[in-house]
Parts: sequence; structure tokens; C-alpha cells
Amino acid sequence: MAVKQFLKCNVCGKEFEEAVKTVCDECFGPLKVQVNLEQAKEKLTKSVLAQRAQSFWRYFELLPLNEKRNIVDIGTTVTPLVKAERLGKLLGLNNLHVKNDAVLPTYSFKDRPVTVGASKAVEFGYRVFSCASTGNLAASTAAHAAKAGLQCYVFVASNIEESKIASIAGYGPTIISVEGIYDVANRLANEAADKYGWAVMNVNVRPYYQEGEKTLSFETCEQLEWKKPDAVVVPVGSGSLLYEIWKGFEEFEELGFVGKEKVRFYAAQGKGASPLVDAVKNGGAIKPYKEVHTIAKSIAMGAPGDGDAAIRIIRETKGGGESPSDEEILEGIRLLAQTEGILTEPAGGTTIAALKKLAEQGAFDANETVVAYVTGNGLKTVDAIPKAKRASVKPKIEEVDAIIANAHLKQ
Amino acid sequence: MAVKQFLKCNVCGKEFEEAVKTVCDECFGPLKVQVNLEQAKEKLTKSVLAQRAQSFWRYFELLPLNEKRNIVDIGTTVTPLVKAERLGKLLGLNNLHVKNDAVLPTYSFKDRPVTVGASKAVEFGYRVFSCASTGNLAASTAAHAAKAGLQCYVFVASNIEESKIASIAGYGPTIISVEGIYDVANRLANEAADKYGWAVMNVNVRPYYQEGEKTLSFETCEQLEWKKPDAVVVPVGSGSLLYEIWKGFEEFEELGFVGKEKVRFYAAQGKGASPLVDAVKNGGAIKPYKEVHTIAKSIAMGAPGDGDAAIRIIRETKGGGESPSDEEILEGIRLLAQTEGILTEPAGGTTIAALKKLAEQGAFDANETVVAYVTGNGLKTVDAIPKAKRASVKPKIEEVDAIIANAHLKQ
Repeated sequence: MAVKQFLKCNVCGKEFEEAVKTVCDECFGPLKVQVNLEQAKEKLTKSVLAQRAQSFWRYFELLPLNEKRNIVDIGTTVTPLVKAERLGKLLGLNNLHVKNDAVLPTYSFKDRPVTVGASKAVEFGYRVFSCASTGNLAASTAAHAAKAGLQCYVFVASNIEESKIASIAGYGPTIISVEGIYDVANRLANEAADKYGWAVMNVNVRPYYQEGEKTLSFETCEQLEWKKPDAVVVPVGSGSLLYEIWKGFEEFEELGFVGKEKVRFYAAQGKGASPLVDAVKNGGAIKPYKEVHTIAKSIAMGAPGDGDAAIRIIRETKGGGESPSDEEILEGIRLLAQTEGILTEPAGGTTIAALKKLAEQGAFDANETVVAYVTGNGLKTVDAIPKAKRASVKPKIEEVDAIIANAHLKQ
Repeated sequence: MAVKQFLKCNVCGKEFEEAVKTVCDECFGPLKVQVNLEQAKEKLTKSVLAQRAQSFWRYFELLPLNEKRNIVDIGTTVTPLVKAERLGKLLGLNNLHVKNDAVLPTYSFKDRPVTVGASKAVEFGYRVFSCASTGNLAASTAAHAAKAGLQCYVFVASNIEESKIASIAGYGPTIISVEGIYDVANRLANEAADKYGWAVMNVNVRPYYQEGEKTLSFETCEQLEWKKPDAVVVPVGSGSLLYEIWKGFEEFEELGFVGKEKVRFYAAQGKGASPLVDAVKNGGAIKPYKEVHTIAKSIAMGAPGDGDAAIRIIRETKGGGESPSDEEILEGIRLLAQTEGILTEPAGGTTIAALKKLAEQGAFDANETVVAYVTGNGLKTVDAIPKAKRASVKPKIEEVDAIIANAHLKQ
């Protein structure tokens, strides 16, 4: 039987058998997993998919795992694609949708790559999971380790917020707080992982881990009744998510599930951490940032690891990008919550703020189908939520009367 | 055409046309909605359901709304029913499942009743939503008001935590902070609502609002491949949730979707706020508490409004109940997170702690299908999460070595 998947260099195209390997022997380019689509085609049809439960692993044939018994699943589901009628009206878009990944089990899209990375790590025989993270990835890695009954070491920078530590600690990992910034913690995690033979989600099992992200586009197509959107707006840190969403559309096209029309890709980064968007705008190569300054911390990366792949896609599809300021990001959070009832973190606010700027620039036709990807929830970052309008009253109806009269005056 | 739904007194059985009405004219008993199941039967079959999207409103025919155009939906989905293998093994249960409602759009089960209450309020012509709440209900009400483009007034007690205020404020309601405890805020909310003609989710549209909760059992049956579980463990505040889950099973039985076998109901309340569980244990009537003391604040009610209905169900089905201490509740949170990767709030910890006590008492046979309902997420209440084991190190591998050696010694 032919192999289910292999590794392929994303720069020179050289192919390798599946292994714990992340970089090309020839050119040091990043390796990606390529699932054998011919094989998948024989088993997977639209009608087969229609009969399956709405869980993440409904796409098993398209994910880089050989045996179903190795699946580590904490209940990751298909997330809602919300028709954003009120937000769309404000932006002049009649077919705007928001894909809400804030409702995954650990409340960010990270459960997608981690369920694949964790399952593959089990398949490779690892007995310990690890990662370095500032929040979302750590929570997801620790939750999957708990479900698998495996040990977990999470490396964090010593300046991490206590509230984030608490949300990670609940899952019971050993938390190692490293003196210094995130990069220092990351290097130490890799050194320890090498020495002790751990599976580090975003490092040594990264090619498999990343493949989980492409399910975002599989779900989007199914939810649009087997159509691609015309344009998507994606938050960009490393660029991996944008690349994998593109890859998902390509694979569904190759399987004959959707048509050949191209999706335009738009990147959202926070101002102060926008190397990719800068390059998109000025037409040149990506120039890394030495320091990053944005409230959208979960996507603040100076040197995007998959930036080259991401920029190629944006240019080929005639897309674009925007990099809103902190203030615009906060306005983006407010706008989404107050028009669609979805409370997101600053990374999601960045997506919405970029969408707004792009819409105002005329990037989209009014009737195009546009999908904005919201990748994390707002509860982990309530500090970033605009301060409450809060009226304090004695328990007397007259005091309420005054507030209501005032509210009407403001309208 | 026959009506789609009517109101029925849950004490004397008298029936009323649908209206904004919560109490029986004859006996002052609580009114419940009864959907016309004969009518629903003509349109709804298992195969029709199988073809519908996994969204809350897939059960439209069984919900008390006349027109689909009145639906207010922020993306409430079918939530995962997780096979809890590791937790089950610890408790000696081979078929334990956890229904995880922490992943709804505002991160608690309240999105179920509120999407119905809000939609019905729109159908009745209301232009303003309101509620008094300590957290989950307020967030959900404000989010649905945002989606509907309506005004929202949320009443809170002045001693509410700032972090909760922030998570509510994001959706943009007018927050009225009332001097005094929750009950004072609640009375003022009702007075204002009467005066200004607002829809108060848990008060004047309560019978419709409550009906949203029965979808928990519809989903459970579908996810168990059209079977009822043998037993369920449900957190109890007012008792409404337990009643509605029971009602959902009854309706699926009447529609012929599942068999006639009875489900045993077990109630979970926090010690210090357990009037229902006390009555279950001592066999007498419910004696209200004047004061409540438990960390499971979202289910801490001294006088459960639907307690009589809930206790009747528990007794008829030969179920039971347990009321874990604060310490046991925290252990329940830890247990669920560290075996299944699901981080819940104290109410969910109460359910798991009660499940554990009941399992230890031999309430379940090892092979019975048991479902535990986890109704809210842990991020809103991180203060309740057990403190982190956190090791601080310099960025040197030798310091990590020491931690790992230590971790191995502990095993």
C-alpha cells in the first residue's frame, strides 16, 4: 500500500519519508507534510463526509496520522461560520462571515494543530509533550497531554501574566518559568527536548502540527455549501496559518470538492509587528523586526518562519494586508462584540480592524463572500477589553430612570 | 393551522395561549411551554435531522418560535459529548461521557436558553433586553442584544468581580451596578423592566427561555446514536436545567426517536447551598436556605424555583444527588482538567465532584452509559483554579535537569 503522507521541502521540493524532521537536508528550507491525495480520493467523498460527526477528525484521510487509535482528541469540533450581518452592513459587505475558533476546547485555534501534533507524537512513540509559549499553545498542549495521560513540560517567560499561568496550570503540566523573554524560554525548551526526547509541538513535530490548521478551510468550504470564499482575512504571526488555510483550499480543489476559482488572501498584523504586511505594501522582501510592539501579542513575531510562503500566496492571489494600531485593534474587538456578540482577543481584534481598513479601501466588492478568521477568545485577555460603562445606583427606580433618560439622549 | 406551542401550568396542568406570562392564573404554579409534538412529528424525522447543520436551531420545530426570521443566533452550536476514558477509568465507569457546554459562544450553557428567550422576545416585539445576573447570563444576554442590534440593560450587584464586569462590558450593554446583593439587583431589574417594557430573559420570557435548555438532551441522544443514557449528573441551581433535560428526553421518546427506558437523574449542588440534595437525601420537602455559602456561585440558590419539578423527577427515576464541599469542588475541577483536558468553572467542578462521590457509593454499574453535564468554562473563574506548580529557573539546562529529576522521584 502506498504511504499516507510524506515530507516535502517548501523551498526546493525535495521529498522525504515521514520522520521527526523539520528542515530540508539539501537547502535547509522548512519541510511540510504532503498527504497522499490520490489515496484519500478513493475513500473520501462529499457524501461520506456528510454522514460523519462534526468533529475535527472527520477529515482523518487528509491528516498525517496512520492509525486512528493514536488520536488524542479533547473534543475539538467544527466551529461556527457566523453570517455577520450587522458587521457586514457597517462595512458595506453583504456576504461577510466570521469563522469563530474562540469556541474550541482550550478557547483558541491552537487545538487544531495540537490535536494533530499530539496524535502524531503518540504515533512516533513519544511519552512527554512540551512547548514554549506565551499562552494559547501552552494551554492546548497541556490539555492534550492530560487527555493522553502523558507528562507535560511548559516553558514560559518569567514576565508572563498570572492569569495566563492560572489558565495553563489547571491542566496540570510542570510549568518552568525562565528568567528572560520568550525567545530565551524557547531556546531552553528546545535544548531540554533534545536532551530528554520530548515531542515539542511547535518544533520537532511542527510539520504534522501545522497540518491541523488547514481544517479551517475544509470547514469553511463545507459551511459555504461546497464553495470557496472570494477573499479571506487571516491573522499572521509566523505565517503558518495563512499558508495552511491556502493549502486546505488547494486540497479541496484537487479532490474535486470545490471549484478552481482563486481565493484572495489578506494578512492582518499589529502595527509595530508587521514585517509581512510591510513587505506586501512596499513590494519588497520581508525585513524582520528586532523588537515587536503591539497589544496583539499572540501574533507578534519579528521574523515570520513561514513568511516567504505567505507572501507568495498573497501576491499570487492578488490579495493584500493591513496593520492596525493598538487603538484600532481595541476598536476591532469592540466592533465584533457589539455587532455579532463574539468576544475575541487582540489577535482577533487585529483581523477585524484590518478587515475594516481593507473594506474602506475598496478591497472587496459588496457582494463578494468574505471570511474573517477569529482565532482566540477574549476572556484570557480581559485587560484589553475597553473599560466598562458602569453606572452605580442605589436600589431605587428613580436612579434607573435617570440612566435611561441619559441613554436616550445619547442616541 | 394548529398552534405551534402553548403554555401549561406545571402544577395544576391548566393551559393558556402563548403570551408574556410566567405564572398560572389559577394556582400560581410556574408556567412551562409545551410545543405541539404532533405537529412537529409531521416535519421532523431522524433523517431530516441528519441532513441539517450542527447548529442549535436544527431543532426549530421543537422550540417555541413561530417564525425563523426572528431567530437571534450568535453561532450556538451542538457541543461535544466527550468519551471520558481516563476519568471513567479512575471512577470505575466504562461508558462515561462529558457534555462540554463550556465551548458555546459566551462560554456557558446560558447561550441555549438566551438564544430562545431573545428570539421569542423579538417575536413578541420587544426592543430592549435585560437581566439581573452574576455573570454567565449577563454575558449571553448582552451578546444576543448586540447581535440583534437592540439595547441591553444588565443589572449586577455592586460586589461583582471586576474581571466579570470586563467580560460582560465587551458586548456593550449599559451596566447598572446596584448597591447590595444579587437579590436587590434582581428586584430592581424587574421593577425597571415592568416600567419600561423590557424583555427580561430569566423573568418575563422565562418559559420560552427555559425551553432552550432541553436541546442538551436532544444533542445527547443524537450523539449516543439515538439512545438515552442510563444516568445523568446535572448541576442544580433553580432546578430548571434538570427539569428541561428530563423534558428533552421525554419529547424525543414521544417523537419515537429513542426508546422508553428511563434515565436516572442525579443532582449536584455545592455544600452550603444544597436545599434540593438535602431533600433528596432525607426524603422530605425542600427547605430553602436563607444564606448560601459555596464557591459554586453560579448555582448557589437558597430557594430553587423549579425545585419541586426537579425532586419529583429524581424520585420517580430512582436517581439521587450529592453536595460536595468547596475543597471537593476544586478537586473536581482539577480532576476533569487533568484527565480530559476540559477546564471548567466551580459549577462544573461540582458536577464532577458529585459524580465521583456517587460512583464511589455504587450509584452506577460499570458498563452503564453515564453523562455528566459541564455547563461553564474555567477562564471566568481562574481564581478558583488550584495554584500553579511553577518552577523558576535561570536559562540553563542544569536547572531543568534538577526539575526533571525531582518530577521523576515524585512518580
